Amino acid sequence: MDLTTLRNANPDHWFKATAIRALTLDAVHAAKSGHSGMPMGMADVATVLFEKHLKFDASAPDWPDRDRFILSAGHGSMLLYSLLYLTGNPDITLDEIRNFRQLGAKTAGHPENFLARGIETTTGPLGQGLANAVGFAIAEEIQRARHGRKIVDHFTYVMAGDGCLMEGISQEAITLAGRQKLSRLILMWDNNNITIDGPVDLADVTDQPTRFRAAGWDVIEIDGHDPTQIDDALTRARRGDKPVMIACKTHIALGHAAQDTPKGHGALTDDQQLLDAKEAYGWKYGPFEIPSDVKTAWEEIGNRGAAAREEWENRVADLSDRKRDAFNRAQSGEAPKRLTATIRALKKQMSESAPKLATRASSEKVLEVVNPIMPETVGGSADLTGSNNTQTADLGVFDVDNRKGRYIHYGIREHGMAAAMNGMALHGGVRPYGGTFMCFTDYARPAMRLAALMEVPTVFVMTHDSIGLGEDGPTHQPVEHLAMSRATPNTYVFRPADTIETAEAWELALTSKSTPSVLSLTRQGVATVRTEHKSKNLTAQGAYVLAEAEGKRQAILIATGSEVEVALAAREALQEEGIGTRVVSMPCMELFAQQDESYRRRVLPAGPVRVGIEAAVRQGWDRWLLGERGREAKAAFIGMDSFGASAPAGELFEHFGITADAVIEQVKSLLG
Amino acid sequence: MDLTTLRNANPDHWFKATAIRALTLDAVHAAKSGHSGMPMGMADVATVLFEKHLKFDASAPDWPDRDRFILSAGHGSMLLYSLLYLTGNPDITLDEIRNFRQLGAKTAGHPENFLARGIETTTGPLGQGLANAVGFAIAEEIQRARHGRKIVDHFTYVMAGDGCLMEGISQEAITLAGRQKLSRLILMWDNNNITIDGPVDLADVTDQPTRFRAAGWDVIEIDGHDPTQIDDALTRARRGDKPVMIACKTHIALGHAAQDTPKGHGALTDDQQLLDAKEAYGWKYGPFEIPSDVKTAWEEIGNRGAAAREEWENRVADLSDRKRDAFNRAQSGEAPKRLTATIRALKKQMSESAPKLATRASSEKVLEVVNPIMPETVGGSADLTGSNNTQTADLGVFDVDNRKGRYIHYGIREHGMAAAMNGMALHGGVRPYGGTFMCFTDYARPAMRLAALMEVPTVFVMTHDSIGLGEDGPTHQPVEHLAMSRATPNTYVFRPADTIETAEAWELALTSKSTPSVLSLTRQGVATVRTEHKSKNLTAQGAYVLAEAEGKRQAILIATGSEVEVALAAREALQEEGIGTRVVSMPCMELFAQQDESYRRRVLPAGPVRVGIEAAVRQGWDRWLLGERGREAKAAFIGMDSFGASAPAGELFEHFGITADAVIEQVKSLLG
Repeated sequence: MDLTTLRNANPDHWFKATAIRALTLDAVHAAKSGHSGMPMGMADVATVLFEKHLKFDASAPDWPDRDRFILSAGHGSMLLYSLLYLTGNPDITLDEIRNFRQLGAKTAGHPENFLARGIETTTGPLGQGLANAVGFAIAEEIQRARHGRKIVDHFTYVMAGDGCLMEGISQEAITLAGRQKLSRLILMWDNNNITIDGPVDLADVTDQPTRFRAAGWDVIEIDGHDPTQIDDALTRARRGDKPVMIACKTHIALGHAAQDTPKGHGALTDDQQLLDAKEAYGWKYGPFEIPSDVKTAWEEIGNRGAAAREEWENRVADLSDRKRDAFNRAQSGEAPKRLTATIRALKKQMSESAPKLATRASSEKVLEVVNPIMPETVGGSADLTGSNNTQTADLGVFDVDNRKGRYIHYGIREHGMAAAMNGMALHGGVRPYGGTFMCFTDYARPAMRLAALMEVPTVFVMTHDSIGLGEDGPTHQPVEHLAMSRATPNTYVFRPADTIETAEAWELALTSKSTPSVLSLTRQGVATVRTEHKSKNLTAQGAYVLAEAEGKRQAILIATGSEVEVALAAREALQEEGIGTRVVSMPCMELFAQQDESYRRRVLPAGPVRVGIEAAVRQGWDRWLLGERGREAKAAFIGMDSFGASAPAGELFEHFGITADAVIEQVKSLLG
Repeated sequence: MDLTTLRNANPDHWFKATAIRALTLDAVHAAKSGHSGMPMGMADVATVLFEKHLKFDASAPDWPDRDRFILSAGHGSMLLYSLLYLTGNPDITLDEIRNFRQLGAKTAGHPENFLARGIETTTGPLGQGLANAVGFAIAEEIQRARHGRKIVDHFTYVMAGDGCLMEGISQEAITLAGRQKLSRLILMWDNNNITIDGPVDLADVTDQPTRFRAAGWDVIEIDGHDPTQIDDALTRARRGDKPVMIACKTHIALGHAAQDTPKGHGALTDDQQLLDAKEAYGWKYGPFEIPSDVKTAWEEIGNRGAAAREEWENRVADLSDRKRDAFNRAQSGEAPKRLTATIRALKKQMSESAPKLATRASSEKVLEVVNPIMPETVGGSADLTGSNNTQTADLGVFDVDNRKGRYIHYGIREHGMAAAMNGMALHGGVRPYGGTFMCFTDYARPAMRLAALMEVPTVFVMTHDSIGLGEDGPTHQPVEHLAMSRATPNTYVFRPADTIETAEAWELALTSKSTPSVLSLTRQGVATVRTEHKSKNLTAQGAYVLAEAEGKRQAILIATGSEVEVALAAREALQEEGIGTRVVSMPCMELFAQQDESYRRRVLPAGPVRVGIEAAVRQGWDRWLLGERGREAKAAFIGMDSFGASAPAGELFEHFGITADAVIEQVKSLLG
């Protein structure tokens, strides 16, 4: 590239874009780590986007009707931090830029949404941002249909690299977007032909434009360093009736000695090469120095949307109280006040009829009463609607001609679904839940982890949660997936025993503001076990005494989900033999861990022997069986220590020894 | 469809195909569960494939040079079981068909490779079989290049449905296959336009042929019920120089009342509809009854390859001893005899020089001595070659014009890589290992689980295994991934402390025949801690006493990987204060669990307080800290209970309190 020609062709643009490049070089140099090449390559595209297209007000990064800018290629975080700093974002100061990648800085190695406003999502694991963006665009469509274009009317712009497009999740995301004609979604592909191992064609020769067209997208191919082409492409992209991919041919690490090389992908820290690059840019300023005219020009870009934002606020103020409250409540993530009463009424009704019901069917019963009073819920399933019991009659189906529809047929795309739900939750105004088989936690896993890290309350409805799935066999029978989810920080894993606990779990999931929930639900019918103490949400305490020992308390049985009835049956037999046995239902270990010690001691006093029962691996149980510091109780566990098998469910529980008889035997053995 | 026309056009073909449909209907009817529609829809394609193209000998399902037939749409398992039974596979008898989906049967709900010969891989989780098939085809190319076309010369046929193609992994698989021009890979797409939730276009409007062409494939579109078109397409497909996708337009549940409907996807168990379907087929036979002429015709198909198989055996017999032994040893999965001596020599050398080295670099040192003596290893990385240290100089790079190359640039496709490696391991003759960051265990997870379930010794090289990764931050720092892998049955999780243990872990991984290995390796340098007892493979015992207490043994510190040196530092300080402290290195919990109790007791005697140290979540540790049945020891754990952060690694260990000082404090606190 001849930088001088570029500079002379449009010096205003050039120095704005170069400010990004210079900050990137300086920050990576100071941190001695990071990724320089992507921000340097995509600086031109980002500059034109922010200057001429992106609707935002830097002083109000939380403005609900802003356009969203998502950096899916999260390793290029300095692009985002530079843009936020330059435009005047209140959270990303020059000090934050100087502290790039240091402990306590908001400028983490990869963008983390919870550290600063203006960071829309957490990216780095490749492809996630692109799939989040699909969720952002769906949320905008649904919100726009519901609240009207005066209140919701914005675009989602996402920047992705070759890595994002090679990841499988990108296919799930783009085909879902193409099917749904998400015309407010615009993808800018950083087509720089470089990956870490070498040129892209070392591993991939995909014709990306053709691939995107096959997925239902429009494609525009441009020179990613030509501001006019960038501007024209964005203008055209905003007019279409499909999602648009703009293939931006760029040079990674533009202007640096490492330009167009894999080295350019990483940290460019060489002192002289840094000076040479700045020299080539015509950039005469020291480290972290932005000349005032360039900074002023960027701040004007940051202010560009201020008037629009004020007009929007006036329009919101002009809404009827009812409409404004509805918008604001959904936006805030607050559940409606009557949710608690609604859940309570259902619990009362269900404990009276006390049906034998699969907890996935219980979950449907909850959704039937919740969805009508929470218009912000958006349900869906990865092509297992009838099995996951996620659809209720009132939702309608989200489609091109029914944007008010609140049920999404995600297709066989567990990973894309999970990441899209995260995007919706991040967007705000909607509360997503979606279903698949518990075993396919595996497929959704990278996005489930990010939900936890990003602190969004996405609800994962995971049905068929054990060998109780039966004949489909071990490929579909989770045994380690409860442990996996429980091992993940900031995740509520609910395994309710019956309709009452399922309703309580949903109440907690729907009122959570910063923790995702995994609902682990049975395929098979289970008895209603909570026939007393219906009013209070006992699941909120994580575990509680479901049935007290009669006589001297010698044993405590701790169980979850479908195994609670096994525990109750064992208790009955043990009591008949005079062995005082308490049953503790433990629908959520994480919430139990959050209770104060005196409550935990009351539920699990030291002394009696303990048996844990769960049709899954033991991992994660010992804290409750043995005590955190040990020496608390003699204990045993009844569960799985292998993969399952293909057979009718009842036979499998016998085969793997998850029975009341096995529990009784263990209790007696522990009691000596 | 007018079935009479089809039948009359080619009655021979028709009744062979109908035998599959009838067996499917009968087996699903008997099991009262299963998936009828797919086998009924693809019976024609399968019949032509087996009759005219597939190279196999039913009596010798393990023949190494057979063509592979992979049913990626694993829910259609009755298609595969029918084909195996009809052609005379020795494992799948009529009794097995009758026992479809019952406890102990080889005919599980989804095909499980370890239950019967002829089942090439375990499928059901969608897209996996397709991605396995890419690995099969790569293994064939590498084997053919190495052993010559007289010994290795076969095709991989894979049958996939809409679900497989919607899953993201399919994109990773097909783009890798397209890049590598795997011309021996032929995909038959069951294009029936139906998913569980409804017609495909409910969720997807992808132009699949265009998508495949964009990925570097040839595409042939046919009527999947026309034997002539099927035959012609397969003939053409075998001639090309690219992988070929044959889009087979089919009717799901052909001839049944549920034909062309989502109901047809599932279990068709209605008595009368079953009889009506058989009537429509012109099939006059009772349940599980195959007329002898049809069975004989199928058995002739099963015998078709017998002569070719015998000729092949003669060619193998004619090889020089050296060549035959090399082929047979690789095929058997046996490591070369000199592996142990090679590892031992490296251990000796490394314990003498005792460098401070990241275990990922140690891993490279092991590969440098192992790859030259094990020509069956095939390495690779998901675009992190330099970071994963997976490439050695001797391997060469697998490419279109270098099929002898043993290093694969998988691209940014962790999931596709893992599944392809499983396919290679299943194919036999090669031993795959591949690298990515430990945190991206998340992306590879569905295939890692299947490796364990399928009992294949795939090696997952997972580097950057903790907050020691540093500045890239929590998106890239595993904290729960050791627990996840350990929760998975039949998986060795190795977290070696230094080069010595890394070499031992590799020895175990490379000699494993039915268990996959996860190597959890540091980014950061760690000291050589194993300066004694170098000769024996102590990692094989899972845990061992690395440093004994001096004086009265009051504390046992148990650590893995980079935290072993933390434990040693703590021990030194504790001993100075007169607190006798043992350090146990525990590189593999699974292998320790397999030791007899007396050894476990010797390593972890009851009495002394225990502190576990690992820069990850506690889950999985309590068994060793507290004892299986409890009351064994007072214990504490030093590790992570949250996500990590972006900062230099050293600061993070301080910040999260994973230090010798913290260990010392815990020991003193436990000792009171």
